[in-house]
Amino acid sequence: MKQVDQLLHARWIVTVNEHNDLFEYHTLVVDQSKIIDILPTELAKQSYRAHQVDDLGEQLLMPGLINAHTHLAMNLLRGFADDLPLMEWLEQQIWPAEGRWVDEQFVADGSELAMAELIRSGTTCFNDMYFFPEITAQVAQKAGLRASIGLMMIDFPTAWGSGPEEYLQKGLALQQKYQDHPLIRTAFAPHATYTVSDVPLLQLKQAAQQHNSAIHIHLHETAGEIALHEKQHGCRPLARLDKLGMLNANLQAVHMTQLSDEEIQQLADNGVQVIHCPESNLKLASGFAPIARLLAAGVNVALGTDGAASNNDLDLFAEMRTAALLAKGVAGDASVVPTTTALRMATINGAKALGIADQTGSLEVGKAADVIAIDLNTIETQPLYDPVSQLVYASSRNQITHLWVAGKQLLKERQLTTLDETQIIKKAQLWQKKIGGQ
Amino acid sequence: MKQVDQLLHARWIVTVNEHNDLFEYHTLVVDQSKIIDILPTELAKQSYRAHQVDDLGEQLLMPGLINAHTHLAMNLLRGFADDLPLMEWLEQQIWPAEGRWVDEQFVADGSELAMAELIRSGTTCFNDMYFFPEITAQVAQKAGLRASIGLMMIDFPTAWGSGPEEYLQKGLALQQKYQDHPLIRTAFAPHATYTVSDVPLLQLKQAAQQHNSAIHIHLHETAGEIALHEKQHGCRPLARLDKLGMLNANLQAVHMTQLSDEEIQQLADNGVQVIHCPESNLKLASGFAPIARLLAAGVNVALGTDGAASNNDLDLFAEMRTAALLAKGVAGDASVVPTTTALRMATINGAKALGIADQTGSLEVGKAADVIAIDLNTIETQPLYDPVSQLVYASSRNQITHLWVAGKQLLKERQLTTLDETQIIKKAQLWQKKIGGQ
Repeated sequence: MKQVDQLLHARWIVTVNEHNDLFEYHTLVVDQSKIIDILPTELAKQSYRAHQVDDLGEQLLMPGLINAHTHLAMNLLRGFADDLPLMEWLEQQIWPAEGRWVDEQFVADGSELAMAELIRSGTTCFNDMYFFPEITAQVAQKAGLRASIGLMMIDFPTAWGSGPEEYLQKGLALQQKYQDHPLIRTAFAPHATYTVSDVPLLQLKQAAQQHNSAIHIHLHETAGEIALHEKQHGCRPLARLDKLGMLNANLQAVHMTQLSDEEIQQLADNGVQVIHCPESNLKLASGFAPIARLLAAGVNVALGTDGAASNNDLDLFAEMRTAALLAKGVAGDASVVPTTTALRMATINGAKALGIADQTGSLEVGKAADVIAIDLNTIETQPLYDPVSQLVYASSRNQITHLWVAGKQLLKERQLTTLDETQIIKKAQLWQKKIGGQ
Repeated sequence: MKQVDQLLHARWIVTVNEHNDLFEYHTLVVDQSKIIDILPTELAKQSYRAHQVDDLGEQLLMPGLINAHTHLAMNLLRGFADDLPLMEWLEQQIWPAEGRWVDEQFVADGSELAMAELIRSGTTCFNDMYFFPEITAQVAQKAGLRASIGLMMIDFPTAWGSGPEEYLQKGLALQQKYQDHPLIRTAFAPHATYTVSDVPLLQLKQAAQQHNSAIHIHLHETAGEIALHEKQHGCRPLARLDKLGMLNANLQAVHMTQLSDEEIQQLADNGVQVIHCPESNLKLASGFAPIARLLAAGVNVALGTDGAASNNDLDLFAEMRTAALLAKGVAGDASVVPTTTALRMATINGAKALGIADQTGSLEVGKAADVIAIDLNTIETQPLYDPVSQLVYASSRNQITHLWVAGKQLLKERQLTTLDETQIIKKAQLWQKKIGGQ
C-alpha cells in the first residue's frame, strides 16, 4: 500500500488524453499536487492509502476548463452597456467608464468577482488581459487559480501608466516576479494592432523571445478593424505581424473572425494559437470565426469567454456548447466540432495555446491535479448514453460540485473555499451603486 | 382590506406588458388563479390580506417562459445521436429508434422527464408535437403545466396509428376532449410539407377553421427540404401552403431558416406565426433564420427549443440568449434583438403564436398567474445595472426558485411539487439501459 495525498473515486473519468479515453469506475490518484495514477477503483483501494479519500459516487471527473481570453476586472461592467457594435461600445461606453473608474481597487474587486465565477463554473485556469495586472496576479494567488497574466500594452495613457514605456517597465518587473511561480505565469499583451505601434510591438517581441513568453493580442476581430488597419498601415493586421516577425507558436491570436484561406494556411504553417470567443463575437456582431476550416488546417483552437461586458458571463461550459453549435451552423455541416473536439477546445487546446500542456489540460499521469467533478445525475442530463455529449450539449455550470487546482480544493459541494462569496457580492453591489449612479 | 389568495412581494417585477414596465418593490396580487393587481408593496400590505404571502426579498418575478416548439418525449433520446445533419440524423438514427421504442410508456416517461426539466428551467407553457398526444396531455395535467398539444399527422404508419385517416380520427377526439380545459388546448400538427400530402393538409385546414385551432408545422427547416419539395411538388413549401389557403395567423411555422424577402413579406401580410429554434438549427446545421428581417417586417417570432435529441436541452433561458446573440451575428448588427425583444420572444410572443396572449405571456391584470421567481443575487448576475440584461445574457436556469401556473405552485425552492424527481430519473435510466443496450 503506497501512501498518497488523495484518492478520487468516480463513476466516470473523462481524460481528454491523446485517445480521449473515458474510464468507468476508476480512481484518480493525487500526490504532491500531481496526478500519479489513474486505475480501476477496486485496484486503487488495494494499492493506495490516502490522507483524503473522496468517493464521488456517480459523478464524473474531467480536467478543469481553461478560459483562454478574459478581462476579469470587467465583471464590474457586466450588463453596463449591451446591444452595441464593437467600436461604439468601446469608444462611447466602455473606454469612458474605464477612464473614470478603473483603479487598483476596481481591478481587485472585479477580478475577485470574476474568479469566484470562474471557479463556480468549472474553470481552473485563465488567460487575462487588463490594466493593473499585478493586482489580478495577487487575486489569482489568493483564489488559488492557475493563470497567465497579460502584461498590457497600448499606445495611449491609462490609469495604469503614462504610455508604452511605462507599461513595458511594469510588465517586465511583473514578468520577473512570477517567472518561477508554480501557478502564475505572465504573457505580453499588446491590446491590438490598431492600438499598438511597431516600436512597442517589437519591444514585446524581443522580451517574449528572451523570456520564452507568449504574446496575447486581439486580432482580426471585425471587418472594420481590418479596414482601419489597412488605412493606417497599408496592410491587414496579420500581414503586419508577419512583417514584424511575430507569427509563431507563442502568438495567441484572439477572435480571428476575418480570415482568407491563405491566412488560415499562414496560421497553420507558423503554429499560431487561435483563441475563439464565439459569444462575444456574436454579441458584438463581429463576424464568424471559421473554426471548422481552422481545425481542418491543423490550427490549435482554444476557447475564451472574453470579458463579462461583452458576453455577459464567464461560463466556459456554455461557451463550449456555443462553439460546437455555431461551428456547425457556420460550416453548414453538422459533423464539424463534434463533442470530443469541443471538449478538447475547452481544455487541452487551451493548455497548448498557453504553452502549459505539459502541466495541465488533461487528466494524465504527471500533470497537475487540475480537476473538476460534475453531477450528471440530474433531470437535465438524463438519460446518459454518452457522458461527453452531456458535458458539451446538456449540462450547465451549476452541476459542478468540486474543483481542484494542483490538488488544492477551491470548490467543495459548490461552496468556495478560498474566496468569500457574500463579501464579493457586497463589493459588486457597492460598485454598481457608484458606477450606475444609483 | 380585500381578501385574496396570494401576495407575492418582490424587489423586481418584469411585466413584459406593452410598455415593458419594470417595477421595483412591488407586489403581484393573485386571486382565483389570476393576477388581479400589481402595486407597490407598501400599498399592497395596506390593501390586501391573503391566504398565502410570499416575501421574495431581492428576487425578481417575471412571466413564465413559453416554449413554442417541443417534442417532449424525445427527452429519452437526449444525446443518443449527435453531430449529424438533419436527414441523416432523422433517417438513420431517430426514425429507426422511434420505430423500435416509441409506445405509450415511452411517451409517458419521456414527457414526464421533459416536463420536470421545463419546470426547473422556468417554463410554464409548451407547444408539443409528438405521437400519442393523449399521453402527453395526461402528463401535462399531472404536472400542472399549460400546454398546446399537437395532434400529429404524417403520411406513413407509426406506432400511434395506421396513417392519416386514423391520425385525424384520434386527433379530432382529443380536440373535443380538451376543448374546454383551462390549461390544455390542442393544435393540429402536420409534421412537414415533405411528409404530409394535400388531402390530409386540407382536412386539417378545415378542422382548424371549424374549431378555431392552430396548425403547427415544421417549415423551411433546411435548403435540402426545400429542394426535395420543389422536386415533389414543383414549388417551395410556403407557396404550396399558400395555394392550399393555409397562410394565416393560426399557422405556426417552425424553423423558417430559408426565406426570400418576398416570403418574409408574405408571412407578415398573412400574420403567420414564426417559431424560431436557434440551437436546433445550429446543431443540425439547418441554416440561419433571418430573425432581424422577420421582426423588422412585423412578423411575430416566438422561441422553441425543439426536442432534446437535437438541442440537447429544453432550457428556454439559454435559447433566449442564443436567439439574441445569433440574430446579431446573422444580421451583422449588434443592435438587433436587444434584451427586451429577446425576453418578449420567450414570453408574450410565444403566447401570441399559440393564440393565448389574452391568458398568459405577461404579468398583467386579468391574465393567469403564470409566474416565475429568479434569484439574481448570485456571483453570476452581479453587479446588476439592468435586470433584463441579466435575465437575457447572464442568468441561468438554476437561478429559478419558484414557478406557478394559474396560481398553482409547481416549483418551490427549486423542488418539484407535482412530479417526483427521483422516480423520473430512475425511469430515464431504465430507458437508457433498454435503448442504449447496456
